[in-house]
Amino acid sequence: MQRIYFDNAATTSLDPEVLEAMMPYLTEKFGNPSSIYSYGRESRLAIENARKTVAKILNAHPAEIFFTSGGTESSNTAISAAVRDLGCRRIISSPIEHHATSHTVEYMNRQGNVALSYVRLTPDGHIDLADLERLLAESREKCLVSLMHANNEIGNLLDIHAAGEICKKYNAVFHSDTVQTVGHYPFDLRNTPVHFITGAGHKFNGPKGVGILYINENVQIKPMIHGGSQERNMRAGTENLYGVVGFAKALELATSRFETDKEYITGLKYYMAEKLKAEIPGIYFNGDTFGKSLYTVLNVSFPKTEKSEMILFNLDINGICASGGSACTSGADLGSHVIRAINNNPNLVAVRFSFSRQNSKEEVDYVVEKLKGML
Amino acid sequence: MQRIYFDNAATTSLDPEVLEAMMPYLTEKFGNPSSIYSYGRESRLAIENARKTVAKILNAHPAEIFFTSGGTESSNTAISAAVRDLGCRRIISSPIEHHATSHTVEYMNRQGNVALSYVRLTPDGHIDLADLERLLAESREKCLVSLMHANNEIGNLLDIHAAGEICKKYNAVFHSDTVQTVGHYPFDLRNTPVHFITGAGHKFNGPKGVGILYINENVQIKPMIHGGSQERNMRAGTENLYGVVGFAKALELATSRFETDKEYITGLKYYMAEKLKAEIPGIYFNGDTFGKSLYTVLNVSFPKTEKSEMILFNLDINGICASGGSACTSGADLGSHVIRAINNNPNLVAVRFSFSRQNSKEEVDYVVEKLKGML
Repeated sequence: MQRIYFDNAATTSLDPEVLEAMMPYLTEKFGNPSSIYSYGRESRLAIENARKTVAKILNAHPAEIFFTSGGTESSNTAISAAVRDLGCRRIISSPIEHHATSHTVEYMNRQGNVALSYVRLTPDGHIDLADLERLLAESREKCLVSLMHANNEIGNLLDIHAAGEICKKYNAVFHSDTVQTVGHYPFDLRNTPVHFITGAGHKFNGPKGVGILYINENVQIKPMIHGGSQERNMRAGTENLYGVVGFAKALELATSRFETDKEYITGLKYYMAEKLKAEIPGIYFNGDTFGKSLYTVLNVSFPKTEKSEMILFNLDINGICASGGSACTSGADLGSHVIRAINNNPNLVAVRFSFSRQNSKEEVDYVVEKLKGML
Repeated sequence: MQRIYFDNAATTSLDPEVLEAMMPYLTEKFGNPSSIYSYGRESRLAIENARKTVAKILNAHPAEIFFTSGGTESSNTAISAAVRDLGCRRIISSPIEHHATSHTVEYMNRQGNVALSYVRLTPDGHIDLADLERLLAESREKCLVSLMHANNEIGNLLDIHAAGEICKKYNAVFHSDTVQTVGHYPFDLRNTPVHFITGAGHKFNGPKGVGILYINENVQIKPMIHGGSQERNMRAGTENLYGVVGFAKALELATSRFETDKEYITGLKYYMAEKLKAEIPGIYFNGDTFGKSLYTVLNVSFPKTEKSEMILFNLDINGICASGGSACTSGADLGSHVIRAINNNPNLVAVRFSFSRQNSKEEVDYVVEKLKGML
């Protein structure tokens, strides 16, 4: 059976060119990057070159880029450090953050270290920036603002510059989970008012198990993981050498393809949306689908029926990979906290389709055709 | 130039069979293990099979094995949880722990969460178990004992059962950094009185960027990294799928070769020690070299001269990889805290040679011959 992979917001395939770049480090170039002999220094050089590549693409200083085990570790590091090292006594976040953020801020709040407020959403699921400003103005404590750049389920994009300017005005620390946008959008960090952003290799055809944390040079924090002096004492542990090399290569490739990929994938998203509207009655798009939204994500609600409640199951049976929400929460089976936050309608079944350059209109046709039989 | 790699305690080459086992997950099998469709469930299955393999080899329950980004993260998780979740108010550790432990316990001590005591060493660098018992008996607080199974620099092996029994007697939590022994020695965790042990794939011809934390089933802790429900809510973040598969495969291979590898590598170690004694006057072995010691590690002190101070540099020039201490501290250039703790003789220069099954007597001959010209 043909497999159609429409879940690229969950993870993506490893680009063969990325694997090729990783291969020398999976075979002969295995030296420990911390070893002082030349064989180790070759590995160190590979990591530092990867850091320079990433920094250049994001327009940051290499000293601001730290390699981690992934986006979740990066967000945990930033949030815990803002509370522990930067004096933040209140966190302002949103009800639609990824669990890497929401579970971390909730945990810190339960530990009694920090107060927690949630910013209001607009009806189409955007962050209400006026409400953010109100919360910051009212807070007597130093604040950490943690708001994701793009929502992984509904695709809504935050105006990171506007949010950052508001944070700056109130002297707040600003962390943005950019896991869905790094590798998909250009960044200009030197001209972006943000203290921490994150990235995960496997979201843009790079390897799993590796990510980055950008820490603005004006921010001094302590590490979350203590030990060796790797990552300039900011992240201990022998480096995931091939992962780091793969991350940089994947980001390089993605950047070289930004414009063509964006145009092509946007075309697929709109094509599927139009086709769904034309062929399936009663559907509904979640989020600001045709406005400020990821070009990779299309979140569709179908009218709830006995049959449509089985939709993910039936998609799977037909070889179609799509998800009800974040993969990271699939195990929990509690439904999507994002969909609940923006549209708590019990008579709808939400499915996220997310695309990559490897998908095609023919696949969309097939999926829509199959969907018609599942409703 | 021929390269001789005598630094296998720092990192090892990836076994081609391990890479072969990882390759499907680096290519076509890229599904997110948390996705509910069959393509994701295949990835989940690979992870759960890896967990079963690891658990079986260590004689633990699969539910006691958690995959992490490496040994450092594992030790950080265990130590921070013992203080935060298990009520430990004093840590008893040793002056010769790896920095993954020592920097973590020092950090927690500085944060004011916990008192910190160091157990005395015997003259040959072993943990003085009578002193451990004295410290535990004197402590009025609940204790975490953190003592490594094998020292990564001098090779000394702890009697983990004896230490664990003492901990049990005083109701202490026992964490052992077993990064140098997992994959090199058999484990029988169901019959070992220990709460936490750690492992790192790259120490036994597995991949970098992946490790395990064993958490005894009688211990309930919270995660260090919050977010998705991966690893049964104990370690959030999309799994390093190929890393996990590679870890299990490497452990499987290592286990199948334990006896032959141990015999062969012990032979190399003793051969080199004898040859050094016979051909280089004034040398000295650090640790309990011919007693309770890793068969993989030979730590040699050479008389300090203007020439011998350049020994690591000269080894490198001759294509020989060896280290002055832990790779994780090489960047720091402060010399070895382990050597200082056991033998603070400023007139000696210590070099660690560490072996694998890929080394040979011919390589030992070459290295000893070259060493003679460096002194």
